[in-house]
Amino acid sequence: MSILRFFTPQDINEARLTGGPLARRQKSALDMTIPATMAKTIETGRLDAFRLDWKPGQPKMPHVYWDSDTAKVLEGMAAALSLRPDPALEAEYDRWVDLIVSAQQSDGYLNTHFTAVEPEKRFTNLFRDHELYCCGHLIEAAVAGYTLLGKRKLLECLCRYADYLCGYFGPGRHRGWPGHEEIELALMKLYRVTEKKEYLELAQYFVNDRGTEPHFFIEVEKTQGDGGGQRTSNQTHAPVRAQTTAEGHAVRAMYLFAGAADVAEATEDVELLRACEAVFENVRNRRMYITGGIGSSFAGERFTTDYDLANGSLMYAESCAAIALVYFCQRMLNLTGEEKYADVLERALFNGVLAGIGLSGDKFFYTNYLEVDDSLYCYNFGSPVRREWFDCSCCPTNFARFLPQMQQYLFSVSDQELWLHLPVDAEIRHRFANGSVARLVVTGGYPYNGNLAIEVQEDGDYTLAVRLPGWCNRAEVKLNGEVVYDGAGGKYLPLARQWRTGDRVALALAMPVEFVRCNPKVTANAGRVAVMRGPVVYCVESRDLPGEVRNFRVDTSHAPEVTAMPPDLPPDARAVKLFGVLEESPSDEPLYFTGEELPCVPCEALAIPYALWNNRGPTNMAVWLRTAKAVSRTEQ
Amino acid sequence: MSILRFFTPQDINEARLTGGPLARRQKSALDMTIPATMAKTIETGRLDAFRLDWKPGQPKMPHVYWDSDTAKVLEGMAAALSLRPDPALEAEYDRWVDLIVSAQQSDGYLNTHFTAVEPEKRFTNLFRDHELYCCGHLIEAAVAGYTLLGKRKLLECLCRYADYLCGYFGPGRHRGWPGHEEIELALMKLYRVTEKKEYLELAQYFVNDRGTEPHFFIEVEKTQGDGGGQRTSNQTHAPVRAQTTAEGHAVRAMYLFAGAADVAEATEDVELLRACEAVFENVRNRRMYITGGIGSSFAGERFTTDYDLANGSLMYAESCAAIALVYFCQRMLNLTGEEKYADVLERALFNGVLAGIGLSGDKFFYTNYLEVDDSLYCYNFGSPVRREWFDCSCCPTNFARFLPQMQQYLFSVSDQELWLHLPVDAEIRHRFANGSVARLVVTGGYPYNGNLAIEVQEDGDYTLAVRLPGWCNRAEVKLNGEVVYDGAGGKYLPLARQWRTGDRVALALAMPVEFVRCNPKVTANAGRVAVMRGPVVYCVESRDLPGEVRNFRVDTSHAPEVTAMPPDLPPDARAVKLFGVLEESPSDEPLYFTGEELPCVPCEALAIPYALWNNRGPTNMAVWLRTAKAVSRTEQ
Repeated sequence: MSILRFFTPQDINEARLTGGPLARRQKSALDMTIPATMAKTIETGRLDAFRLDWKPGQPKMPHVYWDSDTAKVLEGMAAALSLRPDPALEAEYDRWVDLIVSAQQSDGYLNTHFTAVEPEKRFTNLFRDHELYCCGHLIEAAVAGYTLLGKRKLLECLCRYADYLCGYFGPGRHRGWPGHEEIELALMKLYRVTEKKEYLELAQYFVNDRGTEPHFFIEVEKTQGDGGGQRTSNQTHAPVRAQTTAEGHAVRAMYLFAGAADVAEATEDVELLRACEAVFENVRNRRMYITGGIGSSFAGERFTTDYDLANGSLMYAESCAAIALVYFCQRMLNLTGEEKYADVLERALFNGVLAGIGLSGDKFFYTNYLEVDDSLYCYNFGSPVRREWFDCSCCPTNFARFLPQMQQYLFSVSDQELWLHLPVDAEIRHRFANGSVARLVVTGGYPYNGNLAIEVQEDGDYTLAVRLPGWCNRAEVKLNGEVVYDGAGGKYLPLARQWRTGDRVALALAMPVEFVRCNPKVTANAGRVAVMRGPVVYCVESRDLPGEVRNFRVDTSHAPEVTAMPPDLPPDARAVKLFGVLEESPSDEPLYFTGEELPCVPCEALAIPYALWNNRGPTNMAVWLRTAKAVSRTEQ
Repeated sequence: MSILRFFTPQDINEARLTGGPLARRQKSALDMTIPATMAKTIETGRLDAFRLDWKPGQPKMPHVYWDSDTAKVLEGMAAALSLRPDPALEAEYDRWVDLIVSAQQSDGYLNTHFTAVEPEKRFTNLFRDHELYCCGHLIEAAVAGYTLLGKRKLLECLCRYADYLCGYFGPGRHRGWPGHEEIELALMKLYRVTEKKEYLELAQYFVNDRGTEPHFFIEVEKTQGDGGGQRTSNQTHAPVRAQTTAEGHAVRAMYLFAGAADVAEATEDVELLRACEAVFENVRNRRMYITGGIGSSFAGERFTTDYDLANGSLMYAESCAAIALVYFCQRMLNLTGEEKYADVLERALFNGVLAGIGLSGDKFFYTNYLEVDDSLYCYNFGSPVRREWFDCSCCPTNFARFLPQMQQYLFSVSDQELWLHLPVDAEIRHRFANGSVARLVVTGGYPYNGNLAIEVQEDGDYTLAVRLPGWCNRAEVKLNGEVVYDGAGGKYLPLARQWRTGDRVALALAMPVEFVRCNPKVTANAGRVAVMRGPVVYCVESRDLPGEVRNFRVDTSHAPEVTAMPPDLPPDARAVKLFGVLEESPSDEPLYFTGEELPCVPCEALAIPYALWNNRGPTNMAVWLRTAKAVSRTEQ
């Protein structure tokens, strides 16, 4: 495995989403998600916290993680402005920046809780108090404001803070590990735009010192008695470069390894890259839901053990964790050029991530169940309905910044190559070092359609590498009508030529409905199948069959039919009609009874993309379906 | 429904267990459970708490529920002495009684926590503090000491306490509802031996006032801010006689309705009896595991919603709750003479109750899972291994008193009738009012064998009513070789005659292995079957098949074979050999894959009685098994 070092374009707006689910969600983000999360950030006091005027006994005490929410919404505001100018929004953006910058201390420190509430505790409990996590998100917001809008004020402010951190932490200075990673990848972003190597060195320090002995959290515990000592829960069970499995809090783990991948790239640290690779393989092959959701336990919001992937109320799969997996995959893809990373990236993006936000753009899931049965008492703890906000509101604010920047996942470039990862409807324009400009228009309605067209709109000399997805068993590629590839997916097809305006690449990605089975080591899915079409995972809501999905058994020997979506859901998507049987209850409703299998009646069920579930009101739902062969054969 | 008013014999030792699982567990109770729980009661300070010399800052502060544990062990000691004289044990028993009596206050009050720790809080938080619950268990211990051993000292002590309660609670005096019911059934026991109607009236008050408006717990909450207000969690959502479903904490609910049934019997209160009946039907038809376990949620140890019967780590089915269900069933059986109560009683007794204690007699389950898969992270919270004791040790102490008194469930009597409920190996001797003596010897090895003999050993004039169980589709009864009944079960067969020494009743209860299915409204058991033989529920431990039980699929079209038990388990029990298939993992172990069903290999699995699981070390286990028809047909 070598370090290939693609880059995503500095200006993420070299790609513009023009259709399909990503464009739809991005529009709803600009129309709804950004305004809604801005309003909540103000209403809850998170923004005014930067006035530093909170006094004991007053309401709205700045919480240790508040700054991160404000920063993520601010990052989203910058991305929104870069997509759609809006003077009123820009004025509000500038106001937020002024307020945040005004809270910076003379030494560069910037944190509302540890300035206004507990100034004496600065950097005293890195494990619990999200201090460096908040700093990291402020840095990401600052970098976005600079790269997307050219605004320097917040960037300079965060550089001062980062300079302060560089003087405080590191070899020969204070030791410290963040309990919730994020600072590592943020410092790497800051390093990329400033090229100031101290930021790289501090990120490198946080990555390399973590998990080494003496164990920093356990040392802290000895003196402060706090619970930072558990090793696997916070990715400190081994030095990061020695880790081989995804452990502990899923968001923290993915943020850490995203930052570690950045460090590996910048320092050509192949050993560190190997650790990132091993962790990714553990996630992909042992610890990831079919939707790309990760962190299967509600207890600790964490990775657990191999094959522990319960679908129901014990599970978690936090929206932020799916987003964090996308961050990690993007970096690994750019580092290695291996197609498998794009497979997992789009699995998470089109399914686990988009399911976390409602079509209205202002309601969010924290937990993303793969099976819901509201007859079960456990759901009384929190019936699965998307909510506008949470006390700990990381998920809504993550969507606020993620959705306006999704175009960055469409392609990557190197000196002479443009690697197209996601052939969704989009317009792409990239100028290479040699002056050539790749101007491409992608159409066809991916991921709901596999027949796609890439139209070249400007002459240029470069290589267009087209991804043939790993899920695709037969991909045909035509260049100006001539077949240049016909075979399996799971690779990139490089097309090097002098491109001429009007050149046309046609992709035909065979996209049959597939019944997907799960490794039998996963107890929850024993004897069940999931339905996929291309990269899209489907689910069945009880409203779309004449009974409860728990009693539906799909007949895998009866070919499903691709059909139109039900009313009130996006018509460009595709539904799948499934054929099977519905178990009927015995008339006298005994709880237990002997004798033959339950009577079944033939039954059709409509499956819809998992990312669109729960947009027609609360409903019971299942991704993994029981099969009907037993019954259909018996009845013959 | 009329009030029939059987009685269980005053002297429970009119029946003596001579063989089978009940006799075995009773022996282990005398040999191990009683000594082990006595030692823990002393070691943890529960007994010495009655010295009332605890001081702030000292360890072993008497907890609000400690007295109940001591009382339950003391009740068990009395029962053990009545079965097997033991001078050393009797001396210890007398020492415990002296110590307990010495803690009684001049006004009759007796509670270690509210005398030594928080005297000022007496009766201030009935919802939370188990005060009347402890009193109830002390009363039960006192009644057992008197009825089984003829010892009066503790009984007189508790009568003084009960007199104090009668002067404190009730109409025109203080209002009060116990948060954890128990006092009701205890007062009824005390009433039966003393015939003092004030005790009946106080029990009647606690039952009749509960759930009426103004809501006592909510009134308390207004002044004390404590959480007693939730209505369903503590059976106060409606007046007891208006309740129709089993709600809230399962042990509390069953103790309440056991006491309510006692009050209904003593006061010929048919309306109250109807409420008991409705609650029982809700438990039996909607909220009871196939094992007789109840209280399906670990959160609140409680009844939840109809058909919410998860088998795995979300479940609870506390051992005490199965025991409490036996108490409730016994009372309803004696009140109505309806066979269905005996069906549920033996279902809970032979399965849910006995599974809660290990064969060694000194290890206990609090939670009784129906499915265990230790690959799931959730079990890391507490891997299912029986433990010697718990901080809240209600289960071990309940076994200490329950096991030595199981013979009381074998039969009931009225003036001229002996109703044989459980035809386990036993010797029975009862003298009727008319002077006739029923002396019977039951043999045959029930519940593992259906061919049973009842031998009459003394002449007498009475009716012997033999239970033909509800699970039995064909029961043949012979009297001295002559068939007197041949038909379905679900009733009692009364045999009235001048019995002669040597008369012999032969029961042939057809006991095939049955595949039991579950109402499809129960999500957890969709597409699964359980294995039963007679009243015995079976399970499969992974150690008894060449793989993991999660990958085993039983072929219900292949007749199971009754066979010998595996080594290290009681040989008088019966195992069942099941035939099916074992799913194999794809060689490269993908997490998700498309294509045909998993390859399966033919596989045999040995099922053992659920009550005996986890006696050969920790293991994965399942009661509800997937079926194999799909595969076996496909492979043809």
